[in-house]
Amino acid sequence: MARVQARTEAALERVLPSAAIAPQRLHEAMRYAVLGGGKRIRPLLVFAAGEAAAGDATRADSGRLEILGCALECIHAYSLVHDDLPCMDDDVLRRGKPACHVEFDEATALLVGDSLQSLAFQLVAEHRVCDDPVAQVEMLKILALACGSRGMAGGQAIDLASVGRNLTVPELEYMHIHKTGALIRAAVALGARASQASAPAQLDRLDHYAKCVGLAFQVVDDVLDRESSTATLGKTVGKDAANNKPTYVSALGLARAKALAEELRRDAHDALSAMGGAARRLADLADFIVLRKF
Amino acid sequence: MARVQARTEAALERVLPSAAIAPQRLHEAMRYAVLGGGKRIRPLLVFAAGEAAAGDATRADSGRLEILGCALECIHAYSLVHDDLPCMDDDVLRRGKPACHVEFDEATALLVGDSLQSLAFQLVAEHRVCDDPVAQVEMLKILALACGSRGMAGGQAIDLASVGRNLTVPELEYMHIHKTGALIRAAVALGARASQASAPAQLDRLDHYAKCVGLAFQVVDDVLDRESSTATLGKTVGKDAANNKPTYVSALGLARAKALAEELRRDAHDALSAMGGAARRLADLADFIVLRKF
Repeated sequence: MARVQARTEAALERVLPSAAIAPQRLHEAMRYAVLGGGKRIRPLLVFAAGEAAAGDATRADSGRLEILGCALECIHAYSLVHDDLPCMDDDVLRRGKPACHVEFDEATALLVGDSLQSLAFQLVAEHRVCDDPVAQVEMLKILALACGSRGMAGGQAIDLASVGRNLTVPELEYMHIHKTGALIRAAVALGARASQASAPAQLDRLDHYAKCVGLAFQVVDDVLDRESSTATLGKTVGKDAANNKPTYVSALGLARAKALAEELRRDAHDALSAMGGAARRLADLADFIVLRKF
Repeated sequence: MARVQARTEAALERVLPSAAIAPQRLHEAMRYAVLGGGKRIRPLLVFAAGEAAAGDATRADSGRLEILGCALECIHAYSLVHDDLPCMDDDVLRRGKPACHVEFDEATALLVGDSLQSLAFQLVAEHRVCDDPVAQVEMLKILALACGSRGMAGGQAIDLASVGRNLTVPELEYMHIHKTGALIRAAVALGARASQASAPAQLDRLDHYAKCVGLAFQVVDDVLDRESSTATLGKTVGKDAANNKPTYVSALGLARAKALAEELRRDAHDALSAMGGAARRLADLADFIVLRKF
């Protein structure tokens, strides 16, 4: 994991425009928003899915997995920058640092998000992330769908509309499948396709794994928001409760939320059972996501 | 022109998610921001460039030109929605209607822009906009570069940084080549590539035309901002002067700004001279852009 995280960090350093290039302040802010923080869960999933589909790590093309990981981190970072804006979640702390609009200004943060989204598509289009250009076009479509109004951005819209309402667990699940799940599913789908995965049964198993992991990620986030501290998480805890936002903890209580995360972890492992040792890293990541403390 | 505008409107109606699909309010706001307004200059350029590259209108594939026109309108509309936000240009009127964040709310407007950007890439990836998938990947890259920090979003950043400063004419040109020019160049480049244009000399001529037209568009915008009325333009006039923003009129004076627009129109025509009758529509569009009154 540390190796993939370090590779991703180095690759992001390289693919983000230099702060010496005009418009300097925008580029400086883009780098601030993306570099030096984050668990890099999505790149870890890209690498693990790429290795699972290739059969083992040595047969996966790590250069293209690296680019896909960078693209997903650009999308993820853009979503955090926009979510932290005053008109959205209005948060001032992110990854233990001032949020982008606090360190720079709101207008710059808006453009940082907009530019990072474009950069993600640029990266997937300008590098040969797949042997077959038809599959590469498909990968760009997968990324676009994951980001859009029926993916991540749509999930954020549902989240906003849910403030102050009591959601049922299926409604919560619907929200998070979009808000967090869409990009996590894209990470697995893109990693697998970079290794030429095309068998529908294998892609379906990987997608089922990704759905479980994506949901588990959010359930655990809600648990940590209740049980952990601002210092440990590097972001403001207890905000959901303060903002009257529905969470798995508010819907299920702490004990049942933890049990749900555990159940999703088992489901994720089950989805991988037909894939043998090649899927070991994916299995490890499911454990990491559920058992993490930050 | 009216035919292409009507086709674009109908195609946008079709490709934008229905307001009956969840998240309904986001989809309603996306449709509000894109439909029923605008001159559709970018789709007009896509069609004209596609016809020029194909040799004549009957040989161009209008279905794919339509999709590319929609993608560019999604990007353009997203940029207007974000530009109008309070943290940016803070405008309340757009295309004769309340701006998106006024009609809906700021958070929704932010997500509208984010989702429209994703939708543009989705459209270009999910339709066969070119015979050759390698060229299609290249088209996605062209679009991403045009939108990003070294294209449209970068131009907006330079614009923000220029408030209250006296820019020289080369500095103004640099700003507008990015802010408006990048997307206009992409419209011409994508239209030509949809018709399999690949000869570097032809692509260079078309790009030179697009640069002239893109800059002329902005010069004329600045002239109209001084000479026209809010009612005619459907957006607030005189804001640049009120906000102490540099324009071609403030830098050159009204008479010299008009002369510059005329010079750019002639340059645009010259760039097309080797292409004969196939480029007639592009020539007409240069005239339309410079001679328009709104």
